[in-house]
Amino acid sequence: MNVPSLRDLGKLMITGKNHIGNKQSSKGNKTYKTFNPLLNLENNSVFTEATSEEIEEAVDLASEAFKTYRNSSGKKKAKFLNAIADEILALGDELITIYCSESGLPEGRAQGERGRTIGQLKSFANLLEEGSWVEASIDTAQPNRQPLPKSEIRKMLIPVGPIAVFGASNFPLAFSTAGGDTASALAAGCPVIVKSHPMHAGTGELVASAIIKAAQKTGMPNGVFSNLNSSGIEVGERLVKHPKVKAVGFTGSYKGGKALFDLAAKRDEPIPVFAEMGSVNPVVFLPEILKVKGESLAKTYAGSITLGTGQFCTNPGLLLGIKSEALSNFIENLSDEILKIEPSSMLHPNIYETFNRNKQKAISQNGITLSAEYTTDTKPNFAKQAVATVDGKTFLKTPTLHQEVFGPYSIVVQCEDEVQLETIISNLEGQLTGTIMAGENEISSYPNIVSALQNRVGRIIFNGVPTGVEVCASMTHGGPFPASTDSRFTSVGTDAIKRWVRPFSFQDWPNELLPDELKNENPLKIFRSIDNKLTQDRI
Amino acid sequence: MNVPSLRDLGKLMITGKNHIGNKQSSKGNKTYKTFNPLLNLENNSVFTEATSEEIEEAVDLASEAFKTYRNSSGKKKAKFLNAIADEILALGDELITIYCSESGLPEGRAQGERGRTIGQLKSFANLLEEGSWVEASIDTAQPNRQPLPKSEIRKMLIPVGPIAVFGASNFPLAFSTAGGDTASALAAGCPVIVKSHPMHAGTGELVASAIIKAAQKTGMPNGVFSNLNSSGIEVGERLVKHPKVKAVGFTGSYKGGKALFDLAAKRDEPIPVFAEMGSVNPVVFLPEILKVKGESLAKTYAGSITLGTGQFCTNPGLLLGIKSEALSNFIENLSDEILKIEPSSMLHPNIYETFNRNKQKAISQNGITLSAEYTTDTKPNFAKQAVATVDGKTFLKTPTLHQEVFGPYSIVVQCEDEVQLETIISNLEGQLTGTIMAGENEISSYPNIVSALQNRVGRIIFNGVPTGVEVCASMTHGGPFPASTDSRFTSVGTDAIKRWVRPFSFQDWPNELLPDELKNENPLKIFRSIDNKLTQDRI
Repeated sequence: MNVPSLRDLGKLMITGKNHIGNKQSSKGNKTYKTFNPLLNLENNSVFTEATSEEIEEAVDLASEAFKTYRNSSGKKKAKFLNAIADEILALGDELITIYCSESGLPEGRAQGERGRTIGQLKSFANLLEEGSWVEASIDTAQPNRQPLPKSEIRKMLIPVGPIAVFGASNFPLAFSTAGGDTASALAAGCPVIVKSHPMHAGTGELVASAIIKAAQKTGMPNGVFSNLNSSGIEVGERLVKHPKVKAVGFTGSYKGGKALFDLAAKRDEPIPVFAEMGSVNPVVFLPEILKVKGESLAKTYAGSITLGTGQFCTNPGLLLGIKSEALSNFIENLSDEILKIEPSSMLHPNIYETFNRNKQKAISQNGITLSAEYTTDTKPNFAKQAVATVDGKTFLKTPTLHQEVFGPYSIVVQCEDEVQLETIISNLEGQLTGTIMAGENEISSYPNIVSALQNRVGRIIFNGVPTGVEVCASMTHGGPFPASTDSRFTSVGTDAIKRWVRPFSFQDWPNELLPDELKNENPLKIFRSIDNKLTQDRI
Repeated sequence: MNVPSLRDLGKLMITGKNHIGNKQSSKGNKTYKTFNPLLNLENNSVFTEATSEEIEEAVDLASEAFKTYRNSSGKKKAKFLNAIADEILALGDELITIYCSESGLPEGRAQGERGRTIGQLKSFANLLEEGSWVEASIDTAQPNRQPLPKSEIRKMLIPVGPIAVFGASNFPLAFSTAGGDTASALAAGCPVIVKSHPMHAGTGELVASAIIKAAQKTGMPNGVFSNLNSSGIEVGERLVKHPKVKAVGFTGSYKGGKALFDLAAKRDEPIPVFAEMGSVNPVVFLPEILKVKGESLAKTYAGSITLGTGQFCTNPGLLLGIKSEALSNFIENLSDEILKIEPSSMLHPNIYETFNRNKQKAISQNGITLSAEYTTDTKPNFAKQAVATVDGKTFLKTPTLHQEVFGPYSIVVQCEDEVQLETIISNLEGQLTGTIMAGENEISSYPNIVSALQNRVGRIIFNGVPTGVEVCASMTHGGPFPASTDSRFTSVGTDAIKRWVRPFSFQDWPNELLPDELKNENPLKIFRSIDNKLTQDRI
C-alpha cells in the first residue's frame, strides 16, 4: 500500500459528524483533524466536537433504548454483535487505510487488530447464545420449614444501564469504538456512548457507522449506540457526570483514568469506573535461566520491549535480576539486540514527545546507567529505543523509576540478593502482569518471589513475554491499583461483561412472568444453580 | 429471663479490651459503656477505645496473616468457619443475655439471630468445602494455532487482602462481629479487622473471643481476626485510610456509609467499599388486590412495619397505590391495625431520638396527613409507631418524604393514576427491595410498573413482605445507590464472598505449582470451565 494516496481515500467515507443513535449531527463550532505520524502531516478529514446539547441527546436516547434493550434475549443481542463484526469486515480496505494513516501502525497490525476486534465481538455473541453467563440461581421454596417457611428466590445478572466508553490511543480497534468495553457492555444489555478518541477519530467514525448499521439491520432500539467526537476533556467529563450514565469503561493513562474515577466518585450517585491505566509489567529473571539461556532471552526481550514501538500496556518496562556475571552478560546482549531493531513510528507526535520526556527523566536520575540507546537519526515521530540499568538500592529509593515510560524503553534492576528482589517486588505498585523466567525446577526454590509477585499483579506468566493478551474466558487483564481502578474485574475476555451487570432477585415471582433464564422449564437449557447444585435440568 | 439480674452476669466474661489477633490489649484512656434501652440504664462493662498504635498493630498482623491465610485450602477455612459457629454456640446464654441488655431486643430474636449467624457461617463453610465458587477457568494451549500460538491460561478468584468490617446496630450478631461481612471475607481468604459497634460492644467482644478461640483451635495465623473498640469515628477512619486495608464492608446509615466511601475513594490507592445504607422498600398495591384482600393486607403490613420495632433495613416505609375507595379503606384498616400493636423498645436512646425527629420532620411536611400514631404513654425508648398519607403530586415534590425514617413508620402515597405511580417509582432513589401486591392475573396488566420498580431495586417480591432476608445463594441484598455503594454485589447470601476476591490468571504455569483448583487432575473435583465448557472432569 502506498500511504500518501490513502489520505484522500479517507475523505470519501468520513463525515466528521457525531453519530447520535441513528442520526448524524454536527451542531458545534469546534473542529479538529487527526494526524499521520508516518508522514508527519495532518489528515484531511475535519471532525466536529460534540456540543453539550448533542451529549444530552445521546444520553437521553441511550437511557430510552435501555428500557427495551435490557430485556432483549441473548440470541437477539448475539445477532447484533455478530452483525457488528460483519459490518466492520465490510468496511474493507478503507478501514485499514484510515487506521494506518491515523496511527502510524503497519497494515499487518491493522489487519491483526481487526481480526481481534471481530473475534472479540463473536466470543461475546457465543457467550450470549450459550446463555449460562447470567449465573442463574434458584432456591426453591420450603413452605413447611421450621421455625419460618422459606420463600422461593431466583437470581440472575441484569444490566446496570447506559455505559460511557473511552477508547485507548494504542488500540484504535480492539480497545476503542467497538473494542472490548463496547462489546462487553452491549453483550450485557447496556447501551453504549463512546467518547471517540481524537487520535483516531476517522477509524472511530467508520466503526461507529458499522455498529449503527448493524443495530438497524438487527432491529435494535435507536440510541443503543452513539459516538461523540471530542478533542478535549469536556465531552468525557460531561458524560461521566451525567446522571443517566451508570458506569464507565476507560483504557489509557493513569492521569486520564484517575481523573474520571475521581469525577465518578464525587457524583450524587457515584458510579463504577473501570479504568485500565497501564503497567510496567515486571519480569523476574532467576539466576539459573540467565546462565543457560541468557543470550536467546536477550533477543526475545529486545523484541518484546520494542513490539508495536513499545506501545502496549503489557510492555515489559522493568526487568529484575540478582546481580551476577550472567545478568551482566544478559544486559550486554539485550543492549546489543535492542540496537539491531529498526525504530518505528509512535502513534502521535504528542505520544512521541511524552516518550522522550519520560525516558529522559528516567535516565537522568542519580545512579542510573544508560546501557543502550538508538542514536542514529530517524524519521520524525520514530522512537529511539533504550535500555537502562540500576542497582536495587537506588531503584528502591527512586520512585520515578517505578513509573511507566510508555514506549520502547526498559530498565534492568540488578538486585543485591533474593531478599532485596523480594522487597522490590513487594514495594511495586499494582501491575497488569508479572513474569517469571526460570530454568528447569528453578522456580520451586523461590516461593517468596512468586508469592510477592502474585500479590502485585493480575496475571502471572511463566517463561514467556507479557506482551500479547489472549482474548479468552480465562484471561485477567486488570490488576491491583493503579493497573486498574478495580482489581475485581477484567477488561479482556468474556468475564469483562461482569463489569456492567448486577445481581437481581425475584421472590415468589409468577413463573410465566420470570425471564426465560429463571423459568421452571429452563427453556434456554443453561447451567443454573438449583438449591446449590449446578444443573441444566428443569425444576 | 429476668433482665435486670443479667446486667451483672455480663460482667463476668467481658474484659472491655481490644482483641488484636490472639492478644487482648487496652492501651488507651478513652472508655465507654453500652446502654440497656429497656431499663434506660447504662450497662456495667467498661470498654477501652483502640489507640492508633493498637490499630496499627491489628492491621500489621492482618497483613502478615494474609501471607499464609490466603493460601489456606477451602477445607481448612471451612473448618475455621464451622469452629466459629461452634464457639459462638458455646457462649451459651451469656451471649443471649448480653445481646438483650445491649439492644432491648427480645430473647427470641436474639436466639433467632444467633441461629442465622451460625447458619451463615456454615453456609460459607459448605461453599468452601464444595469449592466451585472460585470460578476456575482453563483455556488449554494451542501451540499450532495460526497466525499465533495460543498460550495456556488458567484463572481463579483469589482474596484481595485485609478487610475492615463495620457492623450494624440493628443486627448485633448477623450483621456484626461474625456476621455476613466477616464470614464472607474470612471465607474468601481475607483477614478481618472489625470496628466494634459501640452500641453492642459486649456482644461484639464475646463473639470476637469465640472467633479467636476458633482460629487458635484450627491453626489459623495470628491476626486473621481482630476486634477494635470504638465509640467515635476515628478508629473507623484510620482503618479505612490504612494502606494495608484492601476493602471495606459496612452496614448502617447513609451518612456513615457515604463518609467511608468518600474516604476510601480519596486514598492514594482507592479501595472498594461495600456499604449497605438502608432503603424505604416501596410496596405497590395494585387496585384489584386492595378490593379483594385489603383488610388482611392491612393486618399483614401493620405487622411488617412494626417488626423488630421497625428497625430492619427492609422495613416497608413507602406504600404506593392508586387512589380509590379500596385504598382509602386500606389506609383506615392499616391505621386501626397499627394502633393495636404494643410499642417496643428501640435499640438505643440515640436511635429513639432520631426516629422521633425524622418522623416529626416527615409528618410536618405540607400536604401530609397523619393517619395513625400511637399516643398512649409508653416506657422510655419505646417507639410510637405511625402511618401517614399523602397524594402523589405532593410526594413527588417533597424529597424529605422519600427518605427513610428508621423505625416503625410508613407513608402511604395515593397516586392520581397509573402514570403518576410509574413516575413516582422511576423517581425513587435506589432501594434494597420492591414489592408488588396483586390480585389474580392482575400483575400482567402493569408491565411498566414492574419494569420501573425492577430498575430501582435489588430484589423484587410478589405478594409478600420485604422484611425477612433469606440467607441463600439466590439472595440479592444490595441495590442501586444509595441502597448500596455498588449494586454489582450482594451482602447477604454466599455470593457476598465476591466482594473480597479478584480474578487472577496463570499463563503457562507448571502444573505442580498451580493451586489445586487449577491443576490438570482437578483433585478437588470442582466445576471448572475448560475451553468454555463447564465440567468436573480432569484435563
